[in-house]
Parts: sequence; structure tokens; C-alpha cells
Amino acid sequence: MFAVTILGNNSAVPAFDRHPTSQVVTLDGTNYLVDCGEGTQIQLINYKIRRSKISHIFISHLHGDHYFGLIGLLNSFGLLSHQQELHVYGPSPLKEIIDLQLKVAETTLCYPLHIHHITEAATLVDNEKISIKCFRTNHRIECYGFSFTEKKQPRKLDPDKAKEKEIPSSFYRRLEAGEDYTRKDGTLVKNETVTIAAEPGKRYAFCADTKYDESLLPHIAGFDMIYHETTYLDNLRERAESRFHSTTKQAALIAKKAGVKKLLIGHFSSKYDTLEEFEAEAREVFAETRLALEGVCYEV
Amino acid sequence: MFAVTILGNNSAVPAFDRHPTSQVVTLDGTNYLVDCGEGTQIQLINYKIRRSKISHIFISHLHGDHYFGLIGLLNSFGLLSHQQELHVYGPSPLKEIIDLQLKVAETTLCYPLHIHHITEAATLVDNEKISIKCFRTNHRIECYGFSFTEKKQPRKLDPDKAKEKEIPSSFYRRLEAGEDYTRKDGTLVKNETVTIAAEPGKRYAFCADTKYDESLLPHIAGFDMIYHETTYLDNLRERAESRFHSTTKQAALIAKKAGVKKLLIGHFSSKYDTLEEFEAEAREVFAETRLALEGVCYEV
Repeated sequence: MFAVTILGNNSAVPAFDRHPTSQVVTLDGTNYLVDCGEGTQIQLINYKIRRSKISHIFISHLHGDHYFGLIGLLNSFGLLSHQQELHVYGPSPLKEIIDLQLKVAETTLCYPLHIHHITEAATLVDNEKISIKCFRTNHRIECYGFSFTEKKQPRKLDPDKAKEKEIPSSFYRRLEAGEDYTRKDGTLVKNETVTIAAEPGKRYAFCADTKYDESLLPHIAGFDMIYHETTYLDNLRERAESRFHSTTKQAALIAKKAGVKKLLIGHFSSKYDTLEEFEAEAREVFAETRLALEGVCYEV
Repeated sequence: MFAVTILGNNSAVPAFDRHPTSQVVTLDGTNYLVDCGEGTQIQLINYKIRRSKISHIFISHLHGDHYFGLIGLLNSFGLLSHQQELHVYGPSPLKEIIDLQLKVAETTLCYPLHIHHITEAATLVDNEKISIKCFRTNHRIECYGFSFTEKKQPRKLDPDKAKEKEIPSSFYRRLEAGEDYTRKDGTLVKNETVTIAAEPGKRYAFCADTKYDESLLPHIAGFDMIYHETTYLDNLRERAESRFHSTTKQAALIAKKAGVKKLLIGHFSSKYDTLEEFEAEAREVFAETRLALEGVCYEV
């Protein structure tokens, strides 16, 4: 399953039982943590998300509501005798901040921690299952979004078709690997006639904090789902602009112009005690909008 | 009222809905925050403690479970347009850690923040209501406890006695200020015969993280209430010793030897899902022991 679980959907100050930004992207049992506001480790416990399955953490930018929970989580991993390597990606000087806090506590972590500073759009992770890239967003300080692209699976063998074409079962592995089959009489059986195309890999993007900016579009065009911030309702467009944030309709317009299938909205200002209007306003522009609610898991 | 409200009573890793260390000492409407583990600002909201009444924060030491929530709270004060001066006391390099995180976020606080590094036993606050001192405890890294001494109030006028002694009401203010009264015939009315002694000021001490150490006794002798950590039950005395922590019976023995009236115990290890045994064991040594429970307010 490829899905996103929201741990925190509020902007700067915690309010109305909403927490600062954090979410978990899960693909085939691996958890990728995106942003880590204060209290994220407690939210992980609350929502029974296995911390031991986290091997990569992505920090969009160094405003506190997106990373103040990181040092606590890293520290707890140490106390819980986490063993596996942990990779953290974020803008400079994240490593200096973490190292300083570990040093003053005279803490030596019991697992290998690698903090990678990101400085421009790049591919951060690329393996047989997933490709994870970062891209710049337009915020007050250096800030990155992250895109998660599931790798397309190989074609699957259709055993009935293979039998029908009289291909020996000893050749099935090679069919699955994509080879054609040549009969003894020299006739060719094309691979695609005896295999079935897998579903294309799905794509999700976390667009971080950003003002309305169409330069995001190439990074998210045609995606299955994106998360875009909507700090304010649309009547506060000027305030959003001045604070490098977006409104409901601006987020929805990005989703529409990018031609994505689904939009998740979050990072709600603490001004608002209820959220219904966010959904209603965004849906005026882009029907497939959903509120990013804490504890809820959204399939990509 | 002079009281202590517990915001977090757990040690290192949050568990069983218990949070890392933080407590609020309240005297006459002023809130003094002691330690500030991750999530403290959320606990303040949960327990409806007015953040605006906090003007002093005391950090015992730089292990994360005692201060990782500080930067978030300071940041939120800024976003909430806190106005008054805020004084933070803690060991070096607390100021560098906070300054670095404010700098990278390009945050300018809208209130005057003073971070004072403490380096030895000292008087930190001394005004007409309270005297607050710090003292060293015996922990793995530099660590301080804090004592809060309510100032003794002046004697109160007994109007009946003053009338009986025929003292003119115009002199009452001077009686309240401690003066004797001399009649026209030269006879003296001693102040204590027409005024009533106020209750002596009460005393509370937070003994921070520490192994069993009798050098704490002079700083807390005869206090009305102390908080002492009990990370472990008494069968883990060796582990407590090696990690510079205390057990139930060790905390209780300190309370007994110091001749205090009441003992609060906290900083429970995440090993323990229930706490009854902590209270039972400590009470074997010191009957007036209570568990420091989150959200509960204990009168000094």
C-alpha cells in the first residue's frame, strides 16, 4: 500500500488539539517521515505507527513547526536501542543544530545517523521500490517539497496465455524478466503477448510551505495525490502573500493546473477553530480536495 | 496560593501517556516554569495554565527530556505576541542552542528574552514575594535543582487590640510597617502587642535529576515540600547509581533526612506502565509521599 498518514496539520502554534506539521508516507511497509514538528514522537505513539520502520526523515525547512520534534525523536531512537541506519535530509545548518544538542547532553547514539544537507532540487533516494526527489518551494526561508514516485513493477506472466503458446515452464522466469520466446521452428512469441502490464507506479508530492507559485507545477504534474498548504481561507490572500503562505483557492488552483487526481490540504492557521470552510472553498476550484486530518491515512 | 502543577512526570522517552519533565510553580498568580520537555506548550494548553503569566523559566540540565520543548514555547510566545520580559535560567550553552535556532528561522522575537547561564549555587530571583535559588545536584552532566522560598509576610494589624490600647487610626500604617507606638504620657506600646504574626513563608524545592546524594540536604532542610526523582523502583539500585538516577527508597530517605513535610516523586522510567509500587515503596521510608501526577496541582 502507498499511503499518507497525517500526524500534524496545524501551522506555527499548536491549537484546538491540532499539532505542527508531520506526516508519514508509507510504501510496502517502509515509513518515510516528512517534517517533524514538536510532539511528533508522541503522535507516532498515539497513532501506533512503528518508529522502527522509519529509516528516512525529510525536513522541508527550519521553521520550528516543521522540525522542533526531530531532536527528541532522534534521541528516543537512541534510548530505544534503534539499530538500523537513519537518514535525515534537510537544509543547512540542520546537522549543526542536532550535533550541538547531542554534544551538550554527552549523548552518543547507538545507531548510524546520517544528516544530509539539501541545497537544490535533487534525487535523494532511488531504489527498486521508490524514487524520492526534492524541489524548491517559495517560502520566507529556504524550503523544499518532496515527491515520492513508486517504481513501476515488471510485467506479470499470464500462465494461460503462455500455455496456449506452448512455452515450456522452464522459460517462465525469463518471460517475467521481459524476454521474448523463440520456438524451435524459429517463430517469435513477443513478451507482451504472454505477460500483463503492471499498474504504473503512483506518485505523491508534499509541497511544504509555499506561497502560490506555478514553478511547482513541473514537479507535480499529473501526480496521483499532492499535499499543499492552505494556511488561510481565501479572504486573507494578502496576508498569505506577505507571509509566504497560500490560501485554499490558491492550493486548489495549483492542483488543477498540475492536473493531479487528488489534493490534500493542511497547515491551517491557529486563527481557525473549525476547518469545514477550508474544504468548501478549495472544492469550488478543485473538487477532489480533502482536509488532511490528524490520524487519518489517505491512500495515494 | 503556593502550589505545583505537574505537566510531565516521565523520564527520557514519552510512554503510557506520560510526558517528559515539566512543572509549574505558582505563587500569587505568577507562574514559574521548571524544566520544559518536548510538548510542554501543549500540556500548558491541556491544563489551561496561562502562558502569559509565565515570566521565568528554569532549566535544570541539557538532557533533552528537560528542555527540548523550550525552543517551541519561546517561539510560540513570539507568535502569540507575548509582550513582557521573559527570563530563562539554565546551564551553558543553552543560549547558543536557542540563538542558533532563532537565527536559522530568521525569527526576531517581539519580547525581551534574557537567557541567564547558571554556573554554581546562587540566588536567581529575589523580590518581595519570593526568593529562588539554584543548587547543584549529582547527575551525569551539569545539573541544578531549584528552591522556591515564599517571603514571610509582614505582621497584620489587630484593630481591636489597637483600639483597646487607644492608638489613633492615623498611626495604623506605621504599626503595619512594624513600628512601636509611644503615647503622649511616654508609655510604649510594643508593636507585637497590637499586631498578629503572619504565617512563615513556605518552601518548595525541585531536586532535578540526581543520584542519591546527601549534599542536597542543606538546600532543602525543613522544607514544606520537595520533588525528588525516582526513576526506578528500589530493586534497580545499581542501574540507578550507574545512570546517576535515584530509586524510590533513596528519594524517600533524602526527604526523611532533610526533615521535609511532604515528598513528591516523579521522573518515572518508561519501563513501568503503572506507578502504584513507586508510592508504596517510598512510603515505607517516608509516609508523606505522593506520586507527581500530570495535571494535578499540589499545594506546598
